Amino acid sequence: LGRVSFGVPDPARREQLLRDEASRQTGGKMSLSIAEQKLNSHLHKLKLQEMSATKFPPAMHFFSAKPLIQNSPVYKLIQKMPKGAALHIHSTSMVSVEWLVKNVTYRPHCYICFTWDNSVRFLFSDKQPFPRWDCLYWQLLEALRARIGDPTRFDDSLMQHLTLFTEDPEREYPNQNVVWEKFEKAFIAAAGLITHAPVLRDYIYKGLEELYYDNIMYLELRSGLSRTYELDGTIHDKVWTLKVFQEVTQMFVQDHPDFLGARIIISAHRALGVSEVKTVVKEAIQLQKDFPDVVAGFDIVGREDDGRTLWFFREALSLPAQLGATLPFFFHAGETDDEGSDVDQNILDALLFNTSRIGHGYAIAHHPLAKELSRKRNIAVELCPISNQVLKLVSDLRNHPAVVLMSEGHPLVISSDDPSLFGTSGLSYDFYQAFVGIGGLKANLGTLKELASNSIRYSSLPTNLKNKLHDMWLEKWDLFIANNS
Amino acid sequence: LGRVSFGVPDPARREQLLRDEASRQTGGKMSLSIAEQKLNSHLHKLKLQEMSATKFPPAMHFFSAKPLIQNSPVYKLIQKMPKGAALHIHSTSMVSVEWLVKNVTYRPHCYICFTWDNSVRFLFSDKQPFPRWDCLYWQLLEALRARIGDPTRFDDSLMQHLTLFTEDPEREYPNQNVVWEKFEKAFIAAAGLITHAPVLRDYIYKGLEELYYDNIMYLELRSGLSRTYELDGTIHDKVWTLKVFQEVTQMFVQDHPDFLGARIIISAHRALGVSEVKTVVKEAIQLQKDFPDVVAGFDIVGREDDGRTLWFFREALSLPAQLGATLPFFFHAGETDDEGSDVDQNILDALLFNTSRIGHGYAIAHHPLAKELSRKRNIAVELCPISNQVLKLVSDLRNHPAVVLMSEGHPLVISSDDPSLFGTSGLSYDFYQAFVGIGGLKANLGTLKELASNSIRYSSLPTNLKNKLHDMWLEKWDLFIANNS
Ligand SMILES: [Zn+2]
Ligand SMILES: [Zn+2]
Repeated sequence: LGRVSFGVPDPARREQLLRDEASRQTGGKMSLSIAEQKLNSHLHKLKLQEMSATKFPPAMHFFSAKPLIQNSPVYKLIQKMPKGAALHIHSTSMVSVEWLVKNVTYRPHCYICFTWDNSVRFLFSDKQPFPRWDCLYWQLLEALRARIGDPTRFDDSLMQHLTLFTEDPEREYPNQNVVWEKFEKAFIAAAGLITHAPVLRDYIYKGLEELYYDNIMYLELRSGLSRTYELDGTIHDKVWTLKVFQEVTQMFVQDHPDFLGARIIISAHRALGVSEVKTVVKEAIQLQKDFPDVVAGFDIVGREDDGRTLWFFREALSLPAQLGATLPFFFHAGETDDEGSDVDQNILDALLFNTSRIGHGYAIAHHPLAKELSRKRNIAVELCPISNQVLKLVSDLRNHPAVVLMSEGHPLVISSDDPSLFGTSGLSYDFYQAFVGIGGLKANLGTLKELASNSIRYSSLPTNLKNKLHDMWLEKWDLFIANNS
Repeated sequence: LGRVSFGVPDPARREQLLRDEASRQTGGKMSLSIAEQKLNSHLHKLKLQEMSATKFPPAMHFFSAKPLIQNSPVYKLIQKMPKGAALHIHSTSMVSVEWLVKNVTYRPHCYICFTWDNSVRFLFSDKQPFPRWDCLYWQLLEALRARIGDPTRFDDSLMQHLTLFTEDPEREYPNQNVVWEKFEKAFIAAAGLITHAPVLRDYIYKGLEELYYDNIMYLELRSGLSRTYELDGTIHDKVWTLKVFQEVTQMFVQDHPDFLGARIIISAHRALGVSEVKTVVKEAIQLQKDFPDVVAGFDIVGREDDGRTLWFFREALSLPAQLGATLPFFFHAGETDDEGSDVDQNILDALLFNTSRIGHGYAIAHHPLAKELSRKRNIAVELCPISNQVLKLVSDLRNHPAVVLMSEGHPLVISSDDPSLFGTSGLSYDFYQAFVGIGGLKANLGTLKELASNSIRYSSLPTNLKNKLHDMWLEKWDLFIANNS
C-alpha cells in the first residue's frame, strides 16, 4: 500500500491493487488448473447473465426465487459439484416433507390430532391413543383419509404443517416472531413421526440419501437424541437412538462406499434451565467417551433472540474443562440482529468457551475483536444464507454480513440448517446463494473449491479421516472438472 | 488477545474484552464528562425502550417510519443536539417541497406544463412561454388554480411530483429502476422553479435556514451551478450563480452569527462525455482559483449503476494533477450493490484519484483493501442511511454495511443527500437511523459526539476555520449537555 501514488493512477498499478484485493476473498489464493480456468470462465459468463436478468434470485425471498434457481445453469453446475461435507443440519428437518407425508403418514397405525392452535400431532400406536393435554381427540389417519374426498389437497395441508415453505412468504411471515412460532410448531408436528422407532431408521437413511444425491459425502448432524417410541408405547433412550444412528449410517456407507459417514452434535434447547443443561452436558461427555466415532460434540440450540445466552449457561459449559473431559463445542452464536444486546455477545462467549465452529455467526462482521479471534484461531463460521433470509434477518442476500467475511477470506463453510423447513434439499441452494448473492461477480470457481474443501478441513473428523475424505473428494472434484470444462 | 484463556472464561477478563471491542466503535475512545455520562445513561434507557417496541423504525421503510421517529424521545434529543456540518447535500433538494409549492408556485408569472410521461415542468415568464419539445402547452398556474375546485388536493399533487415521499413506498417503488426514474423526474420538475434567479436567492436562504433550525452550523453543497433565468428570459452563467450563493450565504451568516457558512462542491453529471467533463473540470479549477472561499472542490454525480465509472473519466480526473492545479475531489463512490462489477471499483478509483471524502461508500465494507486505504489516509465515508434505504440498496438498516464501519471506528460523517426528495429536513433523521439502527444498542453519546465532531474534522475548511467552527460547536455542545442532563 505504501507504494501507491495518488492523483494520476498508473493503470498497471491499479490492476495490481484490484488483483491484491481479489486475492483476499475466499478462494482468492487458490491456483486453478487449465481445465479449472476453462470452467471458471464459463461460470463467469453464466453468472454475468444471471446478474443482468430482471429478476435476481438472491435479492428475492427464497420461496419465490426457488423456481428461478432451479432453472439456473449456475445452480445446475453447483448441484453436480462435489461439495464435501454438510456441517450444520438439524436432525428434525433433514428429509423433505413430501416423503414424510406421502410415505410415513401412509403407514399403518398412524394417528393424527388437530390442536386448538391450528397445528397437528402425529402418533403411531397399536391401539386408540389416550387423550393428552394438547390432544383430546386422536383420529386414525387411514380412516380419516378414506372419508376425505380430496386426499391430494389434504396431504398438501399436512405438508403445510411441516414446512415454512409457502407461496406468499411476505404476507404469511410479517415478522420474526411469527416465522419463529411457525418454525417451532413445525418441529413439534414432525417429532411424532420421526421419533417412532421404525420410522427413525428409514428417516436417517433417507436423509443421508438426500445429501448423497446432492453430492455431499459426510454429515455432522445436530440432534437432541430424542427418546423414540414403539407401537406398543415402549420408550427407547438416547443410547438406543445413538446406536440406531450408527447402524443406519454404517448400512448407508456399505450401500454407498463413496460416502464417508456421519456424526452427531448433541444439542440441548436453550429453554432448559442451567441444571438441566448440566445434566445434558454430563451425558454428552459420557456418550462421547462411549461412542467416540459417532459423537462429535455439543451445542445449545433454539432461537437466540428472547432466549437464554451462552453466558447464562456458563456453569454448565465450564463443566468439561473443569472435569478435564473432552467435549468439543459447536455453538450457534450471533443468529441475531439485536446489535449490542446480551444475546449479541454470544459470539464472543462461544469463542471464550473454546467453540470449534460458530453456527451462523450472523453478527460477527460487526464484532471486530471476536472476528479477529475467530480468524486467528481458525474457527469457521457456518454460513446458512437461506435460513437467515427465511428467518428474516435479511431480505436481499447482497446485504448479508457474510459479504464482508467472504471478501476478507474469513474461515467459512456453507450449510442448510433446516432443509425440509425451508424447502431445500442438500446444500446446492445455499451454495448458489453464497456464490451468486453473497460472493457477487467476483466469487469464482476457486471460491467454490475452497468452500467445499473448508467443509472437510473444519469438520470434527480426526486427521486420518479428514485426509481420507479429502482424497475421496478431490477425486470427485477432478472428475467434475473433467466432465464440465 | 494473546492472554485470553479458553474453556472456563474469567468474568473479569471477559468484561475487559467486551470493553476492548466497544472501544473500537465510532466514539468508543471518547471520554465523557460527568454530565455527559448522565445524559448517556438516560439515552441508553430511551434506546432500550425504542428497541423493545413492536415497531422498530430502522427496520421499516423510512416513509412509514417517519411518524414513529417524530415521536421518538431519542429523535427529539438528536434534533436539539448541535450536529456540526452537513457535508453531503445536493443543491436541487435542500428545501422542503411544501415551501416550493405553497410559496414559490404561488408567485406571479409561474407557468406549468404537464408532460406526456406524467411529470411536470415549471417556468417563470413575463409572457406566454414558447412550446418546447417536452412541453407543448404552458398554463399560467394562477389561472389554473382559479379554475380548480380543490386547490389543496391540487397542491398535494404538485408536491408528489417533487418528492419520492409516498404512503405506500413498497408498492410504488418495486425496484431500483422505478425509484431512480422518479428521482430524476423530480429533479427536473424542481429545476424550473429553483433556477429562476429571484427564487434561487430565497431558496438558498431557506435551505440554510432548514439546516440552522436543525442545529447545523456549516454546509458543503454539491451543485452543478446550473444557469439561472430571469422573467424576460435573460440567462445568467455559473459565475453569477456562484456569486449569488456567496452573497446569500453572507447575508444569512450576518442574520445568524452562530452559523459559519457554506461552500460548493461543483458537480458534473456522469451522463456527460469525457470531453464535456474535462471542460467542467477546467472551469472548476478556475472557479476554485477565483472563489477559494466558496468552491470546495469537484464531484461526479448521478446513479452509479448503469452509469459511467470514475475510471471511464480518468483523463478528465487526471487534469488537475497534470496541470499542477489544486482541485479537491469529493467523489460519490460505491453507491451500489452490484458486487464485483466495474461500478463496484469506483471506491478504489476515488481513492487513487486522491478523493478527500467518499460519498456513500456503501460497498466499502466488502472492499478490504480500499477500506484500509480509506482508514489509513483518514478519508471519511459520507453515510446517508435514509438515501440508501429509499433508493433500495437495503431495507432493514440493521443490515447496512456501515454497521461494520461503525463497529470498527472507520472515519464517518452522517448526511442526508437529498432531504426534500426523501421527506427529511436537516440531519436529525439520518442521525437517528445511524445511531439507533446502524449503531445498535452499543452506540452511545460518545458515538454521537464523534460523528458531529467528524463533520468538522473532515470538512474542506482551512485549519483556522475548522478550529473556529469546532470552538463554536463545542460551546453549543456543552450547552446542550447542560440543558439535557
Ligand atoms: Zn441451526
Ligand atoms: Zn449524493
